Amino acid sequence: MPFPQQGRLDITTEFGKMMVHPNEICVIQRGIRFSVALPDGPSRGYICEVFNGAWVIPDLGPIGANGLANPRDFQTPVAAFAHEDEKPFRIINKYGGRLFVAQQNHTPFDVVAWHGNYAPFKYNLALFNTINSVSFDHIDPSIFTVLTCKSEKPGTAIADFVIFPPRWSVQENTFRPPYFHRNCMSEFMGLIHGTYEAKQGGFVPGGASLHSMMTPHGPDAPTFEKASTEELKPMYIAKGTQAFMFESSMQLQPTHWAVETSGKVQEDYYKAWQGLKSNFNPNWKPASQQ
Amino acid sequence: MPFPQQGRLDITTEFGKMMVHPNEICVIQRGIRFSVALPDGPSRGYICEVFNGAWVIPDLGPIGANGLANPRDFQTPVAAFAHEDEKPFRIINKYGGRLFVAQQNHTPFDVVAWHGNYAPFKYNLALFNTINSVSFDHIDPSIFTVLTCKSEKPGTAIADFVIFPPRWSVQENTFRPPYFHRNCMSEFMGLIHGTYEAKQGGFVPGGASLHSMMTPHGPDAPTFEKASTEELKPMYIAKGTQAFMFESSMQLQPTHWAVETSGKVQEDYYKAWQGLKSNFNPNWKPASQQ
Amino acid sequence: MPFPQQGRLDITTEFGKMMVHPNEICVIQRGIRFSVALPDGPSRGYICEVFNGAWVIPDLGPIGANGLANPRDFQTPVAAFAHEDEKPFRIINKYGGRLFVAQQNHTPFDVVAWHGNYAPFKYNLALFNTINSVSFDHIDPSIFTVLTCKSEKPGTAIADFVIFPPRWSVQENTFRPPYFHRNCMSEFMGLIHGTYEAKQGGFVPGGASLHSMMTPHGPDAPTFEKASTEELKPMYIAKGTQAFMFESSMQLQPTHWAVETSGKVQEDYYKAWQGLKSNFNPNWKPASQQ
Amino acid sequence: MPFPQQGRLDITTEFGKMMVHPNEICVIQRGIRFSVALPDGPSRGYICEVFNGAWVIPDLGPIGANGLANPRDFQTPVAAFAHEDEKPFRIINKYGGRLFVAQQNHTPFDVVAWHGNYAPFKYNLALFNTINSVSFDHIDPSIFTVLTCKSEKPGTAIADFVIFPPRWSVQENTFRPPYFHRNCMSEFMGLIHGTYEAKQGGFVPGGASLHSMMTPHGPDAPTFEKASTEELKPMYIAKGTQAFMFESSMQLQPTHWAVETSGKVQEDYYKAWQGLKSNFNPNWKPASQQ
Amino acid sequence: MPFPQQGRLDITTEFGKMMVHPNEICVIQRGIRFSVALPDGPSRGYICEVFNGAWVIPDLGPIGANGLANPRDFQTPVAAFAHEDEKPFRIINKYGGRLFVAQQNHTPFDVVAWHGNYAPFKYNLALFNTINSVSFDHIDPSIFTVLTCKSEKPGTAIADFVIFPPRWSVQENTFRPPYFHRNCMSEFMGLIHGTYEAKQGGFVPGGASLHSMMTPHGPDAPTFEKASTEELKPMYIAKGTQAFMFESSMQLQPTHWAVETSGKVQEDYYKAWQGLKSNFNPNWKPASQQ
Amino acid sequence: MPFPQQGRLDITTEFGKMMVHPNEICVIQRGIRFSVALPDGPSRGYICEVFNGAWVIPDLGPIGANGLANPRDFQTPVAAFAHEDEKPFRIINKYGGRLFVAQQNHTPFDVVAWHGNYAPFKYNLALFNTINSVSFDHIDPSIFTVLTCKSEKPGTAIADFVIFPPRWSVQENTFRPPYFHRNCMSEFMGLIHGTYEAKQGGFVPGGASLHSMMTPHGPDAPTFEKASTEELKPMYIAKGTQAFMFESSMQLQPTHWAVETSGKVQEDYYKAWQGLKSNFNPNWKPASQQ
Repeated sequence: MPFPQQGRLDITTEFGKMMVHPNEICVIQRGIRFSVALPDGPSRGYICEVFNGAWVIPDLGPIGANGLANPRDFQTPVAAFAHEDEKPFRIINKYGGRLFVAQQNHTPFDVVAWHGNYAPFKYNLALFNTINSVSFDHIDPSIFTVLTCKSEKPGTAIADFVIFPPRWSVQENTFRPPYFHRNCMSEFMGLIHGTYEAKQGGFVPGGASLHSMMTPHGPDAPTFEKASTEELKPMYIAKGTQAFMFESSMQLQPTHWAVETSGKVQEDYYKAWQGLKSNFNPNWKPASQQ
Repeated sequence: MPFPQQGRLDITTEFGKMMVHPNEICVIQRGIRFSVALPDGPSRGYICEVFNGAWVIPDLGPIGANGLANPRDFQTPVAAFAHEDEKPFRIINKYGGRLFVAQQNHTPFDVVAWHGNYAPFKYNLALFNTINSVSFDHIDPSIFTVLTCKSEKPGTAIADFVIFPPRWSVQENTFRPPYFHRNCMSEFMGLIHGTYEAKQGGFVPGGASLHSMMTPHGPDAPTFEKASTEELKPMYIAKGTQAFMFESSMQLQPTHWAVETSGKVQEDYYKAWQGLKSNFNPNWKPASQQ
Repeated sequence: MPFPQQGRLDITTEFGKMMVHPNEICVIQRGIRFSVALPDGPSRGYICEVFNGAWVIPDLGPIGANGLANPRDFQTPVAAFAHEDEKPFRIINKYGGRLFVAQQNHTPFDVVAWHGNYAPFKYNLALFNTINSVSFDHIDPSIFTVLTCKSEKPGTAIADFVIFPPRWSVQENTFRPPYFHRNCMSEFMGLIHGTYEAKQGGFVPGGASLHSMMTPHGPDAPTFEKASTEELKPMYIAKGTQAFMFESSMQLQPTHWAVETSGKVQEDYYKAWQGLKSNFNPNWKPASQQ
Repeated sequence: MPFPQQGRLDITTEFGKMMVHPNEICVIQRGIRFSVALPDGPSRGYICEVFNGAWVIPDLGPIGANGLANPRDFQTPVAAFAHEDEKPFRIINKYGGRLFVAQQNHTPFDVVAWHGNYAPFKYNLALFNTINSVSFDHIDPSIFTVLTCKSEKPGTAIADFVIFPPRWSVQENTFRPPYFHRNCMSEFMGLIHGTYEAKQGGFVPGGASLHSMMTPHGPDAPTFEKASTEELKPMYIAKGTQAFMFESSMQLQPTHWAVETSGKVQEDYYKAWQGLKSNFNPNWKPASQQ
Repeated sequence: MPFPQQGRLDITTEFGKMMVHPNEICVIQRGIRFSVALPDGPSRGYICEVFNGAWVIPDLGPIGANGLANPRDFQTPVAAFAHEDEKPFRIINKYGGRLFVAQQNHTPFDVVAWHGNYAPFKYNLALFNTINSVSFDHIDPSIFTVLTCKSEKPGTAIADFVIFPPRWSVQENTFRPPYFHRNCMSEFMGLIHGTYEAKQGGFVPGGASLHSMMTPHGPDAPTFEKASTEELKPMYIAKGTQAFMFESSMQLQPTHWAVETSGKVQEDYYKAWQGLKSNFNPNWKPASQQ
Repeated sequence: MPFPQQGRLDITTEFGKMMVHPNEICVIQRGIRFSVALPDGPSRGYICEVFNGAWVIPDLGPIGANGLANPRDFQTPVAAFAHEDEKPFRIINKYGGRLFVAQQNHTPFDVVAWHGNYAPFKYNLALFNTINSVSFDHIDPSIFTVLTCKSEKPGTAIADFVIFPPRWSVQENTFRPPYFHRNCMSEFMGLIHGTYEAKQGGFVPGGASLHSMMTPHGPDAPTFEKASTEELKPMYIAKGTQAFMFESSMQLQPTHWAVETSGKVQEDYYKAWQGLKSNFNPNWKPASQQ
């Protein structure tokens, strides 16, 4: 599942072509030949590759027959074919974790027609039907699941793709941002555009954060302060923003490039929480008992 | 599942006692002896008896670990016992659709202690964590499910107990009331207090409506008119109201008492929809094509 | 699931229109309004109504990804609408086993567009991909399943719709017609056109036979004689013939009309088997032991 | 699952003895002691060892109660025992991917009787009941599955054992050989005797081919030419031939011995497809449109 | 599932013959022709007919691979055939709850050989491997399940066949007889020979008791007294006794014959419990608190 | 799942505190912070860490609603909190098989209240309700399962925790100790106190044995001799003893420390079986045939 954060992707596959803009995602299944052109010049984005299962719409449970990412909004290519026969083509294959290259003198995109449902597709995140609490409590981010790649263990995803789209926030008597927690999923977070609501500083489009499973985390100190004191009126949040999360039940290991070569690790990330204080007073009593 | 619409129920069971107020519901499982006292004088309410399965919290699916009716808000009686030995007691039993009476000279409520999880419970509907669209679209009422009694067929309930509680309504570009529909469930609706949002006239607390499966229905004409034209701002709806629905995959048959004896059938119910007009113009074109 | 044996059906539904010719079948799901016109004059055919579940393509098991009735050959109506507003329309509804009539002054076929997958469809039986033994043995007729309506009990259908289409018959060392058997399904058989291979006399297009569950049956005496003695070469059978079977795990009860009023019961049907003889000789020994 | 391609295997197990001839297969489960004698002199064959699950007959789906490998044709040893007490015996154990040797002074084959169903068995491939299309289309090779070793993921086998036995081929309007494809299973193919139908040259008994998952393959050029032009009459194919395939959802890695030491890799295997030409003409139109 | 309480049954089926002695049971599946001869003169016994599902050995759960009724102790007939051709035979069929009779001039028992696993079987109850508490507590009678007929609802049997065989009783600190209870199954109990342990008077071989679901019951007063006071040493109980129980999740309705015509109803059955007294003293305190 | 064999463990967790005595076990789930104090001085014990799934009570199957480890005997901490703010705390984390250390200036045990069911618990093994054969045969040790950690493969545990508690042994016509066997689980055995019944010498409290999967084992020679000849009366066994077993479907690999550094491997362990003799006489006949 590759998707751009900046610059359109023009993807050619054996099933046809897809134009993928920022704020769209696409899924190309295992074994499909594809090439990517960058009509807008340099691009960057995010990719999540899963080694088992398939990306599907989550079962909706009590949400009912419609909601979240609706099936009718997914788009599959119209069949197309190329017919260039002379120049050599290089096919790069990933097998057993390694890349192999083959050369052939005809295009792999010479498929004229197809039927079936094992085909690439794309989806515009702006079409997501967002659901959340309209009473109280901060709901688990699973309620923002666009696609999930299930494991054989019911309820435990190999990966979930979750977004934090523009939406109304109306909960009462509630600490509205993600509360401080530690959970059983690795959370890899990115930002396509805008400003993520629980990190008021330092999380820029194209960046990423990784909170490994069972590592405590939560909003930074200014966000905590604001959310604890402001009046809770209906508020339209994340306007112009699209943050997302890959959640996985796997333990993720950053590459050497990410940790060392890139020079992009924020060494002082932990300081976002330094300003938080213990607010519990063991001697507090309800007024009636004082 | 009996619950009062007016007047508290003081229920004695072999497991202990429960006070059930209006806006609370309770579940007494098959085979449990119980008696009901009415401390507030005459009472009335609603009962749904299921002949298979058990009332349970629905699986939450993408809603996650918490939401809708939270397990910690259900209350089970503290063990209690009676010790009256002399006066005769009448035990009324339902078996094979008929009622049988037995007389015994000791109270059935002489159970001193118990353990296990087959025990009656009650729940306060005001504690329901309501979830709904915070973007667009009217979500299926299954999202308001408090308890469900599953059949052996996944996704097909013998009965669902659904409520329409006070909540924020914020959907944009949406016809917010229940749209006109016909569906595979029988919908028995009642009102505990307040005014139901899709029937502006004629639906009083203690009343009931039944829309049999595959019978088309929807909001009345004034509701349609208002919802089609008013500005869509965040609105807190159903304040002071608690409508509910028993939805069942069964075809329900009203009793002779309900249809004839009671004299309560609203013969002109269908007129609520007479004012609706066909609004489709087959000759309409987008401005750009005119 | 109605389908004609003679004369086309022009079916109007809320989802659009379907022309259903002989040798095509169609499925109209519960709750859908429809009307049928007969452009070819008098028509007759067969209907199977199921009261639970839905008609679906069977799981293919080892047959793999394609085979039997292929999904791409099913056709769903293009949305269409009517706009007649003045004359009264009668809507006939079946509920709880009885028919109810309502009158309304607008057409029910005024649905302009739709999405989803609960929609009527039709299928041309000539497109069926027939699979069978290419070595030896007579395979269970389940291998000819076009559609199945599953019960909650895996492997036990409420009803299967099975056909005996034109096909190659090549088994060796095999009694090729349906062998004599007694089984756990009720077999309702009909004939759309041609001559059914296991009943050389007396089974005419538009007719029907019912072999109730656990009632022994098999080919008639001439068929037995022929199949026991003829040379087993590849043979193209059922050319120009389309017999079918509704198989059900239910015990079926013919109506009074079928058994009495119609005057169509073949009282001497059992005589088809009278010519069969016991061929077992308990004193027979292999040549080597004589 | 070891089986010989040449020379009988006389296998002794704790459960008794099995004679396994070419064209028979046998399964010896994990943890069972066995020894193999070669009464016909040098032998060779194929082995597939699975590290999870067990080899079982596939679920038949619509094929019904009988078909493919029938349960009654599998043979389990009659209990037998040895009673040699003096000479030392070497027991070779595989554990954690390594081999361990122990020496003991009594035979491991001193088991006198047994009951249960965890026992070795053998099967004669000539008894396979072959099923295939008797109308049109090339059916997936899963229809030739003799045994499968299921993973926990429904429909995804750790390994399938599939054969291409002698059978009638009768499909019409069909390219009858395996079409060109790329799929999600690794295909390890071998030949017990005869000539495989889709590779007219170069595939000899005792040889093997491996088409890794998602690697395109299909018949060689002469096979393509012949199958595209010959008249489609009933044909008895694979007479005197037994090709087989181990299909696995795993990525297989050939040993160093196979790729290097053996000197048996066919470096020019890819040339089988060099003669194939692009036959698609984008300018072609149906006669009616010219 | 018929079985004799007195007098052997000689059963002829299409699959062969079974001699069923008292303390043996047999199962004859739906659709199988059978006749019963009584070589010992008048016989009587018990029959349980189920209208869905099949009698199978229960899943053993933590009991492991062996235990309760072991598969190897079930006996299936050896194929046998009859060859009488002249005299008329009457076949009685049950269909839709009614009996039908047909006459034919050849025996239905002319089946010469068969294969498959849908065949009648018998089982000797003396071979049952009895498991129970060897520490404390009275275990649910499900631990004595010989055969179960499952419904589609996991854990809810259409019927269980349960026995109370001769066995060691060793629990400490326990009221060893069945305690007083009310449960979700109808309990139909019978006695093949001996004296049932929880009813010291009045339960004779060939008799039966029915405790409908949710009806409280338990041991009679003398049994209660004895079990509450005697020393708890290892005791071999039910020697020479075989009581059994059909448990069903259905509500059973005795026939008119059973309740009225037979004159066998024990009107004073309820008196078995009249001697029981309330033993709870609400004022009791542990010695340390007095 | 850590538990002491000697010396109490005082465990502090974020959910509260647990005192775990010898003969008690506790489970601390993934991701929970904890520290262990040793109030009795040096301690030792056993730990089983699983990397998938969770320790749960096994499904009881035919055992019914109660039995083995009863839910009501498991104890979960009462919420507690610490409030030390100044001294640095070291948090040791295991991630990806490696240990990481972090330092923080506030206690991790500052959680004031909690709800949910993902919480540590302890269980006293003396409360185990032991079930076993009360007729004949040695039952699989799965019947002694306290807790199981299921894999995705039904019936195949990642690990089972099994105990051999004090209990009555009453089987007749049975070799009562664990018979000689080889099985599909790795058996890691330990002893908390007392003397294990099938190893009369050499198995001391705090010790451990490992019988890898498919490695034959059984009682030592003196145990075999005694169990083969002694009279089979009811016997109370394992008095004052608590042996246990971790059974796993995984192949276990002892650490270098266990095999080499510790110097504790019993090199002559195999000699326990050297005294066993072959007792089978192939020439033996029943008296009636001599």
